[in-house]
Amino acid sequence: MDIGVVGLGRMGANMARRMARAGARVVAFDLDAAARGALAGERNLQIAEGLAALAASLPGERVILTMLPAGPATAGALAELLPLLSTGDTLVDGGNAYYRDSMARALEMSQRGMRYVDAGVSGGVHGLAGGYCLMLGGTPKSVERFEPFARLLAPAPDRGWLHCGPSGAGHFAKMIHNGIEYGMMQAYAEGFALLAARKDLEFDLGRLAETWRHGSVVRSWLLDLSAEVLKEDEDMAGVAPVVADSGEGRWTALEAVALGVPAPVITMALMARFSSQGKSDYSRKLLAMMRTKFGGHAITKA
Amino acid sequence: MDIGVVGLGRMGANMARRMARAGARVVAFDLDAAARGALAGERNLQIAEGLAALAASLPGERVILTMLPAGPATAGALAELLPLLSTGDTLVDGGNAYYRDSMARALEMSQRGMRYVDAGVSGGVHGLAGGYCLMLGGTPKSVERFEPFARLLAPAPDRGWLHCGPSGAGHFAKMIHNGIEYGMMQAYAEGFALLAARKDLEFDLGRLAETWRHGSVVRSWLLDLSAEVLKEDEDMAGVAPVVADSGEGRWTALEAVALGVPAPVITMALMARFSSQGKSDYSRKLLAMMRTKFGGHAITKA
Repeated sequence: MDIGVVGLGRMGANMARRMARAGARVVAFDLDAAARGALAGERNLQIAEGLAALAASLPGERVILTMLPAGPATAGALAELLPLLSTGDTLVDGGNAYYRDSMARALEMSQRGMRYVDAGVSGGVHGLAGGYCLMLGGTPKSVERFEPFARLLAPAPDRGWLHCGPSGAGHFAKMIHNGIEYGMMQAYAEGFALLAARKDLEFDLGRLAETWRHGSVVRSWLLDLSAEVLKEDEDMAGVAPVVADSGEGRWTALEAVALGVPAPVITMALMARFSSQGKSDYSRKLLAMMRTKFGGHAITKA
Repeated sequence: MDIGVVGLGRMGANMARRMARAGARVVAFDLDAAARGALAGERNLQIAEGLAALAASLPGERVILTMLPAGPATAGALAELLPLLSTGDTLVDGGNAYYRDSMARALEMSQRGMRYVDAGVSGGVHGLAGGYCLMLGGTPKSVERFEPFARLLAPAPDRGWLHCGPSGAGHFAKMIHNGIEYGMMQAYAEGFALLAARKDLEFDLGRLAETWRHGSVVRSWLLDLSAEVLKEDEDMAGVAPVVADSGEGRWTALEAVALGVPAPVITMALMARFSSQGKSDYSRKLLAMMRTKFGGHAITKA
């Protein structure tokens, strides 16, 4: 039960901890010394000072989990790792990579005689205590190598992890999972905004969200988090109305277009995030100017 | 602890049962003899043969809960009930009434010296065992009269029920609750449709939904139900792709327009239901014909 973990951010560090606490021997590395230091001295956790040291500390056939941002960070680490690995080693990419990239990576790895698992991981900062939901893609043999660790990471050994299908299926499932998350979050946010707009009805949004948690049809983990937020500070005066987006929402919308299968709510939730980032400002300016031209309506000066 | 329950459909019958099993004395009536018969002989449950008998069986100050479809059914029952009630009696409307109607009804009742509570009720057919989520609107005195019963109906005496605000606030909260539900349901449905479209990735949707229930960000009660559906019959070959809508989705969209507060995802989910009902067919025909006119593109014959 030896595993390497590369990338000790919010997700990777706690996943390393969860496996180590459950009895696995974890060799961990991060480019950032502070991230490495944060795990130093924990039981069953060995800190490596580089990828070569990490690879050398693991017995073959190695299993290495990368928990890095998709794109250059993951690609860079893999490029450095590959020459250090041997036939039969298994690389598990737990980042939010685009499933098409993961398919290509699996092919490349298999051509070198190595195994690759694309792992969609959900659970956020609460995963350390509660466990992570794992969506795995790859050949049966590859997934089998990672299974003992999946059983430690999941909420329970027999649930919360799944071999979804061939290479790419894990990251595809995670992509769709996050697309659904975009739509759900937007639905809650719109509803609470409508409630907040009716000052005359005197809603205590934190208490209402808390009430919905018990017995209602809309109860969910995202509602649990919304209730926490609204109980702490319903007005959120210090928060700018800007919502970031990461790859999965965009990829889900692209997939809907590629398949010709409508996903209007997921896509709309994504577009609403773009708007929040100021990306509707040009169209809004143009709309205001058109109204001036045809109706002499005043514009709001910038 | 005496209460009258008018309307013994899926919701009303089980709410009557839950209160009776918890020790309240329930006098129940439904226009349908079979609905009355279904509750006959249960402990603490007395069946009334009419509204007059129901009113006569309750000690004053009476508390009567109506669990009827919003609109004519509720209006008709209230019109028949009102002459049978006395000063100090409390009427609790647990149907999905439009909150503006509930506000008017509360005013009318108060002018007659009677109390009115608008109660949004969520929980569906699972409420009997698990309890109902209750959103209550009305004066403090009115809600106080119903509180002992709310504590029996809710999942626990101290949670899952809330005095939301003045008259109308209960049904307003339930309206928004259902609007959010529309958006959430559509988000899940779109996500699973995209997964289903990728036959090459070999997803077992029931197992994937089950996996997401444990540790993932999108876990929810609606996901629990989706997992049940998909495990039973992922293809749903016997189900027509038609989704009904009831009042709340429409009212939520109307409220967004009245307030000028965007609710694009909730509104889109509503529009998607209209489309499923064939209400986009005319625009689709016209689109197909436009393509014929400008590009000579073939149409699909009806």
